[in-house]
Amino acid sequence: MTTVRPVETPAAASAPALPGDVLARLRAIVGPEHVLTGDELSGYADPYSFLENPVRAAAAVQPSSVEQVRAIVLLAGECHVPLWTVSRGRNYAYGGAAPRVAGSVVLDLQRMDRVLEVDDELGYVVVEPGVSFLDLHAHLAALGSRLLISVPDLGWGSVIGNALERGFGYAAHGNHSANICGLEVVLADGTVLATGMGAKPGSPAAPLYRGGYGPSLDELFLQSNLGVVTKMGIWVQPRPDTIVVCHARTAGDAELGPLVDALRPLLLDGTIQSPASVGNATVIASMMSDRATWYTGEGAMPPEAVAEIVSRTGLGWWNAGFALYGPEVITSARLQVVRAALEAIPGVTFDETTYAGDVDPGKVHPADSAKLGIPGTAMVRMAAWRGGEPAHTDFSLVCPNRSVDVLRQRDLIRAGVERHGFDYGGGFTMFPRHTIALALLSFDRSDPAQRQAVRDLFPELIAQASALGYAPYRSHTAFMDLVAEQYDANDNALGRTLATLKDALDPNGTLSPGKQGVWPGRSLAALDA
Amino acid sequence: MTTVRPVETPAAASAPALPGDVLARLRAIVGPEHVLTGDELSGYADPYSFLENPVRAAAAVQPSSVEQVRAIVLLAGECHVPLWTVSRGRNYAYGGAAPRVAGSVVLDLQRMDRVLEVDDELGYVVVEPGVSFLDLHAHLAALGSRLLISVPDLGWGSVIGNALERGFGYAAHGNHSANICGLEVVLADGTVLATGMGAKPGSPAAPLYRGGYGPSLDELFLQSNLGVVTKMGIWVQPRPDTIVVCHARTAGDAELGPLVDALRPLLLDGTIQSPASVGNATVIASMMSDRATWYTGEGAMPPEAVAEIVSRTGLGWWNAGFALYGPEVITSARLQVVRAALEAIPGVTFDETTYAGDVDPGKVHPADSAKLGIPGTAMVRMAAWRGGEPAHTDFSLVCPNRSVDVLRQRDLIRAGVERHGFDYGGGFTMFPRHTIALALLSFDRSDPAQRQAVRDLFPELIAQASALGYAPYRSHTAFMDLVAEQYDANDNALGRTLATLKDALDPNGTLSPGKQGVWPGRSLAALDA
Repeated sequence: MTTVRPVETPAAASAPALPGDVLARLRAIVGPEHVLTGDELSGYADPYSFLENPVRAAAAVQPSSVEQVRAIVLLAGECHVPLWTVSRGRNYAYGGAAPRVAGSVVLDLQRMDRVLEVDDELGYVVVEPGVSFLDLHAHLAALGSRLLISVPDLGWGSVIGNALERGFGYAAHGNHSANICGLEVVLADGTVLATGMGAKPGSPAAPLYRGGYGPSLDELFLQSNLGVVTKMGIWVQPRPDTIVVCHARTAGDAELGPLVDALRPLLLDGTIQSPASVGNATVIASMMSDRATWYTGEGAMPPEAVAEIVSRTGLGWWNAGFALYGPEVITSARLQVVRAALEAIPGVTFDETTYAGDVDPGKVHPADSAKLGIPGTAMVRMAAWRGGEPAHTDFSLVCPNRSVDVLRQRDLIRAGVERHGFDYGGGFTMFPRHTIALALLSFDRSDPAQRQAVRDLFPELIAQASALGYAPYRSHTAFMDLVAEQYDANDNALGRTLATLKDALDPNGTLSPGKQGVWPGRSLAALDA
Repeated sequence: MTTVRPVETPAAASAPALPGDVLARLRAIVGPEHVLTGDELSGYADPYSFLENPVRAAAAVQPSSVEQVRAIVLLAGECHVPLWTVSRGRNYAYGGAAPRVAGSVVLDLQRMDRVLEVDDELGYVVVEPGVSFLDLHAHLAALGSRLLISVPDLGWGSVIGNALERGFGYAAHGNHSANICGLEVVLADGTVLATGMGAKPGSPAAPLYRGGYGPSLDELFLQSNLGVVTKMGIWVQPRPDTIVVCHARTAGDAELGPLVDALRPLLLDGTIQSPASVGNATVIASMMSDRATWYTGEGAMPPEAVAEIVSRTGLGWWNAGFALYGPEVITSARLQVVRAALEAIPGVTFDETTYAGDVDPGKVHPADSAKLGIPGTAMVRMAAWRGGEPAHTDFSLVCPNRSVDVLRQRDLIRAGVERHGFDYGGGFTMFPRHTIALALLSFDRSDPAQRQAVRDLFPELIAQASALGYAPYRSHTAFMDLVAEQYDANDNALGRTLATLKDALDPNGTLSPGKQGVWPGRSLAALDA
């Protein structure tokens, strides 16, 4: 039997009261100052919400230890109170710390903020959920560590949260979820599960070997409501002698296809070690200027305004950035190969900056910092692009890393956002075989028409992409059910399997119900009962 | 309720009869010629068994399609008949195609042998379970493909079976399970699950992006009895212009530690792209000669005989092999860095062979072929090392990739095998952060004392390793329960979690019961019932 059901309509977004003594018992577990209610919950609202009646939490609880997490999880199960787990809850583009189900208690892990292990020799760290990229970078610097972490666009987020949500960064280990090695997870029954080699008492290999014995469970906890991750090992690259940050710029829109097809083989054979991020002039302009500088008319910014950005800033129509790492003799050879491949494309210009030895962060070009493993928060400026009340949300499609698909997705996304009066600021983060196609959508949250346009646009884009065989890898909480419904092959085999796992591991259905469209009580066994 | 229970004792190894009409119904599904019984089952016995009463199958069934697999799985569930799934069943070192439970029906997928997709541009193939490395290599050659597959020691095994069991090979994508992308799995209830992007109808990204939406399920099916894998995407490297196969040899035993610590940073930063396999003189001698050539005395081969091998063959005491891939300008730079690092170690000699352009397999040194992606079966000779009836089994520990652990495991394994009169032939397959420590144990199966020694040795080694925090990543079926018991941290959290998943996904408990120590009917829910 389950008590948690989806909240699909704005009307249901008002929070039901928590059962009797739940707040008192939570306060007894973590201390009264770490249970937040009422006006103290402003940090747990979606700061960029486009909903008319955003979903609200009933309370938030901030444990400081695994034992406290266990106690909270067991209490929630006993009292049938939905929890919504966030590591730091700072991914504002996808909903921040706000829950999927109104009246949830946000289980906020930000106080668990220890860096538990740093190993320069074997290239890994072990962290708790509250550790941000900014924290980790500072911690490593203070230790004098020779590790170079891969950081995403904004450094304030949780290293664990980012990796679990399949976020990515821009150094050699930029595919963060692929570098997870060894989790500690609190399950709904209070079990503290150590995955992989962590299940072997005393093993030094938990953060080293992704296997173990029998099935691997780490990836069960990606974008997941099957447990609460309280510890993670993640692989980190050694800081090399030389880093060459490369930039390729296109004269116009037409060179995007050839650029993609030139970068792919260099990524596939490892000549380029980082992901290649390819952004258009509009998205880069939005990181350093206001829209009004370029355009003040109605509707989406026209091509002439984009051309103006290109001509006045020196940006390309499309701008690719990536990095080469290693001893100087090897980065020089890599650079020679890369330069030859990119300079062969008419309409593409190429340049690079070489950083050797210890890098002075004050002398790093802002566009290069992420490739050097230096986290920042400058990109938050993007949300103010449209003026008014800054807000931002992202649309993220999985795309094969080849021009035919990239161009199809570019056209689909651009047409969609422009139809609704938004500017097409976005691009592609390219990995060897796939790329993530992004529309970075900034809007004025104080404008009801813009909020409505976001609500209209996303379902349209999801449906149009789906018809071509494409789907998002991630979404705002408001669209989680809709995205999950696209993954319905073979009579919804994946959804049915996830429902079976959910009901087996969380029979009371209290862990983050609805996350990624996985709801409790929907397995065949539960429906029969 | 479950009907399948572990067979722990030799007495129970005799097969109970199959229920009434199971054989007839299996014949109706696959055709009578593809259901094997009685004397036809010789291929489903462990060819190298060291047990006095090896576990026997009751029958074998060879489907040719996913629909037939579904029908068999549903029949087995209905009739409570244990199935034991093998892709090709050729991993003789760990038990071949013989089941864990006597009286099982071996579900042999070797007739499902199609290569479904080959994509040179994006670097992947999609295969069925019956495709061997030899098959795949021949298929790619016939197509004129520019892909270079990573192959393990023996090419006759299944590409899928090897990857699912966490086997490895020797080219850039040598960590095979890490390169799985997109599975098709038949679950116990007949569901045909496509994982990851495969759940999106029409998606081209199933073999490209390891994520999807929500939890990833691919790794649930590694070393697993939670489903039957019928299709797999796996990433393959593009064949480069230049391949440099490198060999480093040590003068004695003492240089192993420095060699490991010199190779690690080169693997960690990607200078060396393949795993580095480090084998001692004895194991390499066993691939090309008989033991009697070197030693005919009692007990383990003494150091003088090993020294004789070294002096007469030109082998090192320890021998490292690995490869560099890419355009010539990059492999030259890589080689320069590698050579400098290894030649700096006193007592280590280094040489390399460069293969450029299209490689003529007839001109490849046998020790280099795996690094070039050319599969073979020469290593099977090793089983004849001791004369008599050739047999072989492996002991495989997970080890941090640093000298302190490597030397500790070397000493532990050598002392153990020599105590029981075996020769220490083995080594380490080094990945960036971990290495697999191997004892390759050849024995004369016709000698009861040698069989007994294998049965005594493995539990001793497992216990001694466990006391130091080490455990095998893989084992012969006979030791699966024992190994699983080592992974018992936090009140056996992993074992309890796997039992819960097993009972949820396979409530009748008929899919490969006991595999990796995962038995049905052991979840808390099942025990309560």
